[in-house]
Amino acid sequence: MRLAELSTRSGVSTATIKYYLREGLLPPGRRVTATQAEYDEKHVQRLRLVRALIQVGRVPIASAREVLTALEDDSLDRNFRLGVAVWALPHGPQPPADDPATQTARHTVDALLARLGWRFSEDLGPLSPAYGMLVTAVGALTRLGYPCTVDDLAPYAHSAGQLAVADLDSVDRHEAPDEQLEAAVALTVLYEPVLLSLRRLAQAEESNRRYGQAPSDGPEASKE
Amino acid sequence: MRLAELSTRSGVSTATIKYYLREGLLPPGRRVTATQAEYDEKHVQRLRLVRALIQVGRVPIASAREVLTALEDDSLDRNFRLGVAVWALPHGPQPPADDPATQTARHTVDALLARLGWRFSEDLGPLSPAYGMLVTAVGALTRLGYPCTVDDLAPYAHSAGQLAVADLDSVDRHEAPDEQLEAAVALTVLYEPVLLSLRRLAQAEESNRRYGQAPSDGPEASKE
Repeated sequence: MRLAELSTRSGVSTATIKYYLREGLLPPGRRVTATQAEYDEKHVQRLRLVRALIQVGRVPIASAREVLTALEDDSLDRNFRLGVAVWALPHGPQPPADDPATQTARHTVDALLARLGWRFSEDLGPLSPAYGMLVTAVGALTRLGYPCTVDDLAPYAHSAGQLAVADLDSVDRHEAPDEQLEAAVALTVLYEPVLLSLRRLAQAEESNRRYGQAPSDGPEASKE
Repeated sequence: MRLAELSTRSGVSTATIKYYLREGLLPPGRRVTATQAEYDEKHVQRLRLVRALIQVGRVPIASAREVLTALEDDSLDRNFRLGVAVWALPHGPQPPADDPATQTARHTVDALLARLGWRFSEDLGPLSPAYGMLVTAVGALTRLGYPCTVDDLAPYAHSAGQLAVADLDSVDRHEAPDEQLEAAVALTVLYEPVLLSLRRLAQAEESNRRYGQAPSDGPEASKE
Protein backbone atom coordinates (compact mmCIF):
# COMPACT_ATOMS: atom_id res chain seq x y z
CA MET A 1 0.00 0.00 0.00
CA ARG A 2 1.03 3.62 -0.50
CA LEU A 3 1.60 6.20 2.24
CA ALA A 4 -1.96 7.59 1.94
CA GLU A 5 -3.49 4.16 2.52
CA LEU A 6 -1.12 3.42 5.41
CA SER A 7 -2.35 6.68 6.96
CA THR A 8 -6.03 5.73 6.51
CA ARG A 9 -5.49 2.19 7.78
CA SER A 10 -3.56 3.25 10.87
CA GLY A 11 -5.35 6.51 11.65
CA VAL A 12 -1.96 8.26 11.80
CA SER A 13 -1.52 11.38 9.64
CA THR A 14 0.95 11.22 6.72
CA ALA A 15 3.00 14.02 8.31
CA THR A 16 3.35 11.99 11.53
CA ILE A 17 4.23 8.84 9.59
CA LYS A 18 6.97 10.75 7.75
CA TYR A 19 8.25 12.00 11.10
CA TYR A 20 8.36 8.44 12.50
CA LEU A 21 10.20 7.29 9.35
CA ARG A 22 12.79 10.06 9.76
CA GLU A 23 13.25 9.22 13.45
CA GLY A 24 13.77 5.54 12.66
CA LEU A 25 10.68 4.42 14.58
CA LEU A 26 9.19 2.87 11.44
CA PRO A 27 11.29 0.89 8.94
CA PRO A 28 11.35 2.39 5.42
CA GLY A 29 8.94 1.02 2.81
CA ARG A 30 10.03 -0.82 -0.31
CA ARG A 31 10.99 1.91 -2.79
CA VAL A 32 9.02 1.59 -6.08
CA THR A 33 9.84 4.90 -7.79
CA ALA A 34 12.14 7.79 -6.85
CA THR A 35 9.33 9.40 -4.83
CA GLN A 36 7.11 6.50 -3.83
CA ALA A 37 7.41 3.56 -1.46
CA GLU A 38 5.24 0.57 -0.78
CA TYR A 39 4.21 -0.39 2.78
CA ASP A 40 2.75 -3.62 4.16
CA GLU A 41 0.90 -5.11 7.16
CA LYS A 42 4.07 -5.02 9.26
CA HIS A 43 4.04 -1.23 8.92
CA VAL A 44 0.42 -1.01 10.06
CA GLN A 45 1.23 -3.13 13.10
CA ARG A 46 4.40 -1.23 13.94
CA LEU A 47 2.54 2.10 13.71
CA ARG A 48 0.04 0.75 16.23
CA LEU A 49 2.83 0.04 18.70
CA VAL A 50 4.56 3.38 18.09
CA ARG A 51 1.28 5.21 18.76
CA ALA A 52 0.70 3.17 21.91
CA LEU A 53 4.15 4.07 23.22
CA ILE A 54 4.33 7.72 22.18
CA GLN A 55 0.78 9.04 22.04
CA VAL A 56 -0.75 7.02 24.88
CA GLY A 57 2.18 5.98 27.06
CA ARG A 58 4.00 9.31 26.55
CA VAL A 59 7.26 7.45 26.11
CA PRO A 60 10.00 9.82 24.84
CA ILE A 61 11.11 9.28 21.21
CA ALA A 62 14.61 8.14 22.24
CA SER A 63 13.21 5.52 24.65
CA ALA A 64 10.70 4.34 22.05
CA ARG A 65 13.58 3.83 19.60
CA GLU A 66 15.44 1.74 22.21
CA VAL A 67 12.33 -0.37 22.83
CA LEU A 68 11.88 -1.04 19.11
CA THR A 69 15.57 -1.83 18.60
CA ALA A 70 15.39 -4.45 21.37
CA LEU A 71 12.28 -6.02 19.85
CA GLU A 72 14.09 -6.44 16.53
CA ASP A 73 17.33 -7.87 17.86
CA ASP A 74 17.16 -11.45 16.62
CA SER A 75 20.37 -12.33 18.40
CA LEU A 76 18.52 -12.30 21.74
CA ASP A 77 16.05 -14.93 22.89
CA ARG A 78 12.42 -13.99 23.40
CA ASN A 79 12.49 -13.53 27.16
CA PHE A 80 15.60 -11.41 26.93
CA ARG A 81 14.27 -9.27 24.06
CA LEU A 82 11.11 -8.60 26.04
CA GLY A 83 13.14 -7.74 29.14
CA VAL A 84 15.36 -5.30 27.25
CA ALA A 85 12.32 -3.69 25.58
CA VAL A 86 10.48 -3.19 28.89
CA TRP A 87 13.68 -1.93 30.54
CA ALA A 88 13.87 0.82 27.91
CA LEU A 89 10.47 2.17 29.00
CA PRO A 90 10.55 5.14 31.41
CA HIS A 91 10.63 4.05 35.07
CA GLY A 92 10.53 7.40 36.85
CA PRO A 93 13.30 8.57 39.16
CA GLN A 94 15.87 6.01 40.29
CA PRO A 95 16.94 5.93 43.97
CA PRO A 96 19.14 8.75 45.27
CA ALA A 97 22.57 8.02 46.75
CA ASP A 98 22.40 5.79 49.79
CA ASP A 99 20.82 7.89 52.51
CA PRO A 100 19.37 5.89 55.46
CA ALA A 101 15.84 5.79 53.99
CA THR A 102 17.15 4.37 50.70
CA GLN A 103 19.18 1.73 52.58
CA THR A 104 16.11 0.74 54.59
CA ALA A 105 14.08 0.62 51.37
CA ARG A 106 16.66 -1.61 49.69
CA HIS A 107 16.59 -4.05 52.62
CA THR A 108 12.80 -4.10 52.60
CA VAL A 109 12.63 -4.73 48.85
CA ASP A 110 15.28 -7.48 49.04
CA ALA A 111 13.41 -9.16 51.92
CA LEU A 112 10.15 -8.92 49.95
CA LEU A 113 11.67 -10.52 46.83
CA ALA A 114 13.18 -13.29 48.97
CA ARG A 115 9.85 -13.99 50.65
CA LEU A 116 8.05 -14.06 47.30
CA GLY A 117 10.68 -16.32 45.78
CA TRP A 118 11.08 -13.93 42.83
CA ARG A 119 14.53 -15.29 42.04
CA PHE A 120 14.84 -13.61 38.64
CA SER A 121 14.39 -10.14 40.18
CA GLU A 122 16.63 -11.06 43.12
CA ASP A 123 19.42 -12.07 40.74
CA LEU A 124 19.15 -8.88 38.69
CA GLY A 125 18.68 -6.65 41.72
CA PRO A 126 19.79 -3.04 41.23
CA LEU A 127 20.46 -3.67 37.53
CA SER A 128 16.71 -3.66 36.91
CA PRO A 129 15.03 -0.27 36.50
CA ALA A 130 11.78 -1.64 37.99
CA TYR A 131 13.76 -2.62 41.11
CA GLY A 132 15.14 0.95 41.25
CA MET A 133 11.64 2.38 40.81
CA LEU A 134 10.37 0.21 43.70
CA VAL A 135 13.28 1.19 46.00
CA THR A 136 12.62 4.86 45.17
CA ALA A 137 8.92 4.53 46.01
CA VAL A 138 9.53 2.60 49.24
CA GLY A 139 12.23 5.12 50.20
CA ALA A 140 9.78 8.00 49.69
CA LEU A 141 7.18 6.30 51.92
CA THR A 142 9.84 5.62 54.59
CA ARG A 143 11.20 9.18 54.43
CA LEU A 144 7.70 10.60 54.86
CA GLY A 145 7.10 8.38 57.89
CA TYR A 146 4.48 6.08 56.32
CA PRO A 147 4.88 2.44 57.29
CA CYS A 148 6.24 0.37 54.45
CA THR A 149 7.38 -3.01 55.72
CA VAL A 150 7.46 -6.31 53.87
CA ASP A 151 4.01 -7.02 55.40
CA ASP A 152 2.66 -3.68 54.09
CA LEU A 153 3.98 -4.43 50.60
CA ALA A 154 2.93 -8.08 50.47
CA PRO A 155 -0.71 -7.53 49.34
CA TYR A 156 0.49 -5.28 46.50
CA ALA A 157 3.04 -7.87 45.40
CA HIS A 158 0.38 -10.57 45.59
CA SER A 159 -1.91 -8.57 43.27
CA ALA A 160 1.00 -7.76 40.96
CA GLY A 161 1.70 -11.48 40.64
CA GLN A 162 -1.91 -12.15 39.64
CA LEU A 163 -1.85 -9.28 37.15
CA ALA A 164 1.33 -10.54 35.53
CA VAL A 165 -0.34 -13.89 34.89
CA ALA A 166 -3.30 -12.07 33.26
CA ASP A 167 -0.85 -9.91 31.25
CA LEU A 168 1.12 -12.86 29.93
CA ASP A 169 -2.09 -14.79 29.18
CA SER A 170 -3.16 -11.88 26.91
CA VAL A 171 0.24 -11.92 25.28
CA ASP A 172 0.06 -15.67 24.66
CA ARG A 173 -3.23 -15.22 22.78
CA HIS A 174 -1.19 -13.69 19.94
CA GLU A 175 0.28 -16.34 17.70
CA ALA A 176 3.45 -15.03 16.06
CA PRO A 177 6.38 -14.41 18.45
CA ASP A 178 6.90 -10.91 16.99
CA GLU A 179 3.27 -10.02 17.65
CA GLN A 180 3.60 -11.39 21.17
CA LEU A 181 6.54 -9.13 21.86
CA GLU A 182 4.73 -6.08 20.48
CA ALA A 183 1.63 -6.93 22.50
CA ALA A 184 3.67 -7.38 25.67
CA VAL A 185 5.20 -3.93 25.40
CA ALA A 186 1.93 -2.27 24.35
CA LEU A 187 -0.08 -3.95 27.12
CA THR A 188 2.52 -3.10 29.77
CA VAL A 189 2.13 0.56 28.88
CA LEU A 190 -1.59 0.67 28.05
CA TYR A 191 -2.84 -1.25 31.08
CA GLU A 192 -1.07 1.03 33.59
CA PRO A 193 -3.80 3.73 33.47
CA VAL A 194 -6.43 0.94 33.46
CA LEU A 195 -5.01 -0.43 36.70
CA LEU A 196 -4.55 2.93 38.42
CA SER A 197 -8.05 4.15 37.54
CA LEU A 198 -9.62 0.86 38.66
CA ARG A 199 -7.75 1.14 41.98
CA ARG A 200 -9.17 4.65 42.51
CA LEU A 201 -12.69 3.46 41.66
CA ALA A 202 -12.30 0.49 44.01
CA GLN A 203 -11.04 2.81 46.77
CA ALA A 204 -14.12 5.00 46.34
CA GLU A 205 -16.35 1.89 46.61
CA GLU A 206 -14.53 0.66 49.70
CA SER A 207 -14.49 4.12 51.31
CA ASN A 208 -18.21 4.49 50.66
CA ARG A 209 -18.83 1.05 52.14
CA ARG A 210 -16.82 1.85 55.29
CA TYR A 211 -17.51 5.53 55.92
CA GLY A 212 -20.27 6.56 53.56
CA GLN A 213 -23.90 7.30 53.97
CA ALA A 214 -26.59 5.82 51.76
CA PRO A 215 -26.77 8.18 48.76
CA SER A 216 -30.07 10.06 48.79
CA ASP A 217 -32.21 7.02 49.56
CA GLY A 218 -32.87 7.48 53.23
CA PRO A 219 -31.65 9.03 56.42
CA GLU A 220 -27.93 9.08 57.23
CA ALA A 221 -26.71 5.50 57.58
CA SER A 222 -25.25 4.37 60.89
CA LYS A 223 -21.58 5.23 61.15
CA GLU A 224 -21.20 2.99 64.20
CA MET B 1 8.65 25.42 67.26
CA ARG B 2 10.32 28.04 65.05
CA LEU B 3 10.77 27.85 61.28
CA ALA B 4 14.31 26.47 61.59
CA GLU B 5 13.15 23.56 63.74
CA LEU B 6 10.17 22.89 61.46
CA SER B 7 12.68 22.63 58.62
CA THR B 8 14.91 20.18 60.54
CA ARG B 9 11.97 18.08 61.71
CA SER B 10 10.37 17.84 58.25
CA GLY B 11 13.51 17.73 56.13
CA VAL B 12 12.08 20.55 53.98
CA SER B 13 14.29 23.63 53.48
CA THR B 14 13.16 26.94 55.04
CA ALA B 15 12.96 28.50 51.55
CA THR B 16 10.58 25.75 50.40
CA ILE B 17 8.48 26.07 53.58
CA LYS B 18 8.16 29.82 52.96
CA TYR B 19 7.09 29.09 49.39
CA TYR B 20 4.42 26.62 50.59
CA LEU B 21 3.20 29.22 53.12
CA ARG B 22 2.91 31.87 50.37
CA GLU B 23 1.06 29.43 48.10
CA GLY B 24 -1.40 28.56 50.87
CA LEU B 25 -0.34 24.90 51.01
CA LEU B 26 0.63 25.24 54.67
CA PRO B 27 -1.47 27.21 57.17
CA PRO B 28 0.38 30.18 58.75
CA GLY B 29 1.99 29.66 62.15
CA ARG B 30 0.89 31.48 65.29
CA ARG B 31 2.56 34.90 65.10
CA VAL B 32 4.70 35.57 68.23
CA THR B 33 6.63 38.70 67.17
CA ALA B 34 6.47 40.87 64.06
CA THR B 35 8.98 38.61 62.31
CA GLN B 36 8.55 35.23 64.00
CA ALA B 37 5.85 32.59 64.07
CA GLU B 38 5.40 29.42 66.06
CA TYR B 39 4.61 26.10 64.34
CA ASP B 40 3.27 22.84 65.79
CA GLU B 41 2.91 19.13 65.05
CA LYS B 42 0.06 19.81 62.63
CA HIS B 43 2.53 21.73 60.46
CA VAL B 44 5.03 18.85 60.48
CA GLN B 45 2.29 16.47 59.42
CA ARG B 46 0.92 18.78 56.74
CA LEU B 47 4.41 19.31 55.29
CA ARG B 48 4.74 15.53 55.00
CA LEU B 49 1.58 15.39 52.91
CA VAL B 50 2.55 18.39 50.76
CA ARG B 51 5.93 16.77 50.01
CA ALA B 52 4.23 13.49 49.18
CA LEU B 53 1.92 15.23 46.72
CA ILE B 54 4.33 17.66 45.10
CA GLN B 55 7.80 16.15 45.34
CA VAL B 56 6.89 12.47 44.98
CA GLY B 57 3.49 12.44 43.26
CA ARG B 58 4.38 15.43 41.02
CA VAL B 59 0.94 16.87 41.64
CA PRO B 60 0.76 20.49 40.33
CA ILE B 61 0.59 23.21 43.01
CA ALA B 62 -2.97 24.22 42.04
CA SER B 63 -4.23 20.62 42.31
CA ALA B 64 -2.42 20.15 45.64
CA ARG B 65 -4.18 23.26 46.95
CA GLU B 66 -7.56 21.82 45.89
CA VAL B 67 -6.78 18.51 47.60
CA LEU B 68 -5.85 20.27 50.85
CA THR B 69 -8.92 22.54 50.73
CA ALA B 70 -11.16 19.50 50.41
CA LEU B 71 -9.45 17.78 53.36
CA GLU B 72 -10.15 20.81 55.55
CA ASP B 73 -13.77 21.36 54.60
CA ASP B 74 -15.55 20.40 57.84
CA SER B 75 -18.94 20.88 56.22
CA LEU B 76 -18.46 17.62 54.26
CA ASP B 77 -18.62 14.14 55.77
CA ARG B 78 -15.51 12.00 55.81
CA ASN B 79 -16.27 9.86 52.78
CA PHE B 80 -17.17 12.91 50.74
CA ARG B 81 -14.08 14.88 51.82
CA LEU B 82 -11.88 11.97 50.83
CA GLY B 83 -13.67 11.67 47.50
CA VAL B 84 -13.25 15.35 46.70
CA ALA B 85 -9.57 15.24 47.72
CA VAL B 86 -8.80 12.25 45.51
CA TRP B 87 -10.80 13.78 42.64
CA ALA B 88 -8.54 16.80 42.75
CA LEU B 89 -5.48 14.62 42.03
CA PRO B 90 -4.34 14.50 38.39
CA HIS B 91 -6.08 11.74 36.40
CA GLY B 92 -4.42 12.09 33.03
CA PRO B 93 -6.35 12.87 29.85
CA GLN B 94 -10.14 12.59 29.98
CA PRO B 95 -11.96 10.88 27.07
CA PRO B 96 -12.18 12.71 23.73
CA ALA B 97 -15.55 13.57 22.21
CA ASP B 98 -17.64 10.51 21.47
CA ASP B 99 -15.90 8.78 18.59
CA PRO B 100 -16.87 5.10 18.09
CA ALA B 101 -13.94 3.78 20.18
CA THR B 102 -14.89 6.02 23.12
CA GLN B 103 -18.52 4.89 22.88
CA THR B 104 -17.43 1.25 22.88
CA ALA B 105 -15.14 1.96 25.83
CA ARG B 106 -17.97 3.62 27.78
CA HIS B 107 -20.23 0.61 27.22
CA THR B 108 -17.46 -1.77 28.28
CA VAL B 109 -16.73 0.21 31.45
CA ASP B 110 -20.43 0.47 32.35
CA ALA B 111 -20.88 -3.28 31.83
CA LEU B 112 -17.81 -3.95 33.98
CA LEU B 113 -19.08 -1.77 36.85
CA ALA B 114 -22.49 -3.45 36.66
CA ARG B 115 -20.93 -6.91 36.78
CA LEU B 116 -18.75 -5.94 39.75
CA GLY B 117 -21.68 -4.38 41.56
CA TRP B 118 -19.70 -1.17 42.08
CA ARG B 119 -22.86 0.87 42.57
CA PHE B 120 -21.13 3.97 43.89
CA SER B 121 -19.06 4.32 40.69
CA GLU B 122 -22.06 3.43 38.54
CA ASP B 123 -24.11 6.22 40.15
CA LEU B 124 -21.36 8.80 39.68
CA GLY B 125 -20.46 7.61 36.19
CA PRO B 126 -18.89 10.27 33.96
CA LEU B 127 -18.77 12.74 36.88
CA SER B 128 -15.86 10.80 38.34
CA PRO B 129 -12.38 11.57 36.92
CA ALA B 130 -11.25 7.98 37.61
CA TYR B 131 -14.14 6.79 35.42
CA GLY B 132 -12.98 9.20 32.70
CA MET B 133 -9.42 7.94 33.04
CA LEU B 134 -10.59 4.35 32.66
CA VAL B 135 -12.74 5.14 29.59
CA THR B 136 -9.76 6.94 28.03
CA ALA B 137 -7.46 3.96 28.63
CA VAL B 138 -9.99 1.41 27.36
CA GLY B 139 -10.67 3.64 24.33
CA ALA B 140 -6.94 3.75 23.54
CA LEU B 141 -6.68 -0.04 23.69
CA THR B 142 -9.76 -0.38 21.47
CA ARG B 143 -8.51 2.21 18.98
CA LEU B 144 -5.17 0.39 18.71
CA GLY B 145 -6.94 -2.91 18.08
CA TYR B 146 -6.02 -4.61 21.37
CA PRO B 147 -8.86 -6.64 22.86
CA CYS B 148 -10.36 -4.96 25.87
CA THR B 149 -13.65 -6.61 26.80
CA VAL B 150 -15.26 -6.92 30.22
CA ASP B 151 -13.58 -10.34 30.49
CA ASP B 152 -10.17 -8.82 29.68
CA LEU B 153 -10.66 -6.14 32.33
CA ALA B 154 -12.13 -8.38 35.04
CA PRO B 155 -8.81 -9.68 36.48
CA TYR B 156 -7.51 -6.11 36.79
CA ALA B 157 -10.71 -5.01 38.53
CA HIS B 158 -10.49 -8.02 40.84
CA SER B 159 -6.94 -7.07 41.87
CA ALA B 160 -7.94 -3.42 42.24
CA GLY B 161 -10.68 -4.47 44.65
CA GLN B 162 -8.19 -6.40 46.78
CA LEU B 163 -5.77 -3.47 46.74
CA ALA B 164 -8.46 -1.04 47.86
CA VAL B 165 -9.14 -3.21 50.91
CA ALA B 166 -5.40 -3.19 51.73
CA ASP B 167 -5.32 0.59 51.13
CA LEU B 168 -8.23 1.32 53.44
CA ASP B 169 -6.88 -1.08 56.08
CA SER B 170 -3.67 1.01 56.17
CA VAL B 171 -5.74 4.15 56.44
CA ASP B 172 -7.79 2.71 59.31
CA ARG B 173 -4.60 2.05 61.29
CA HIS B 174 -4.37 5.83 61.81
CA GLU B 175 -6.52 6.94 64.72
CA ALA B 176 -7.56 10.57 64.21
CA PRO B 177 -9.97 11.16 61.29
CA ASP B 178 -7.77 14.02 59.99
CA GLU B 179 -4.73 11.75 59.95
CA GLN B 180 -6.77 9.09 58.17
CA LEU B 181 -7.69 11.53 55.41
CA GLU B 182 -4.10 12.67 54.99
CA ALA B 183 -2.90 9.07 54.93
CA ALA B 184 -5.53 8.13 52.35
CA VAL B 185 -4.41 10.83 49.93
CA ALA B 186 -0.71 10.21 50.53
CA LEU B 187 -1.02 6.43 50.15
CA THR B 188 -3.13 6.78 46.98
CA VAL B 189 -0.31 8.77 45.40
CA LEU B 190 2.71 7.03 46.94
CA TYR B 191 1.61 3.46 46.30
CA GLU B 192 1.05 4.02 42.55
CA PRO B 193 4.76 3.64 41.67
CA VAL B 194 4.97 0.73 44.16
CA LEU B 195 2.20 -1.05 42.30
CA LEU B 196 3.51 -0.32 38.78
CA SER B 197 7.06 -1.38 39.61
CA LEU B 198 5.86 -4.58 41.31
CA ARG B 199 3.78 -5.39 38.21
CA ARG B 200 6.85 -5.00 35.98
CA LEU B 201 8.92 -7.19 38.30
CA ALA B 202 6.16 -9.80 38.39
CA GLN B 203 5.93 -9.69 34.57
CA ALA B 204 9.66 -10.34 34.33
CA GLU B 205 9.29 -13.32 36.71
CA GLU B 206 6.36 -14.71 34.75
CA SER B 207 8.04 -14.12 31.39
CA ASN B 208 11.16 -15.86 32.63
CA ARG B 209 9.07 -18.76 33.91
CA ARG B 210 7.23 -19.13 30.59
CA TYR B 211 9.84 -18.29 27.97
CA GLY B 212 13.15 -18.05 29.77
CA GLN B 213 16.17 -20.22 29.95
CA ALA B 214 17.77 -21.19 33.23
CA PRO B 215 20.16 -18.33 33.98
CA SER B 216 23.72 -19.56 33.59
CA ASP B 217 23.23 -22.78 35.49
CA GLY B 218 22.83 -25.21 32.67
CA PRO B 219 22.10 -25.65 29.00
CA GLU B 220 19.19 -23.86 27.38
CA ALA B 221 15.98 -25.02 29.05
CA SER B 222 13.34 -26.73 26.95
CA LYS B 223 11.08 -24.20 25.28
CA GLU B 224 8.49 -26.81 24.40
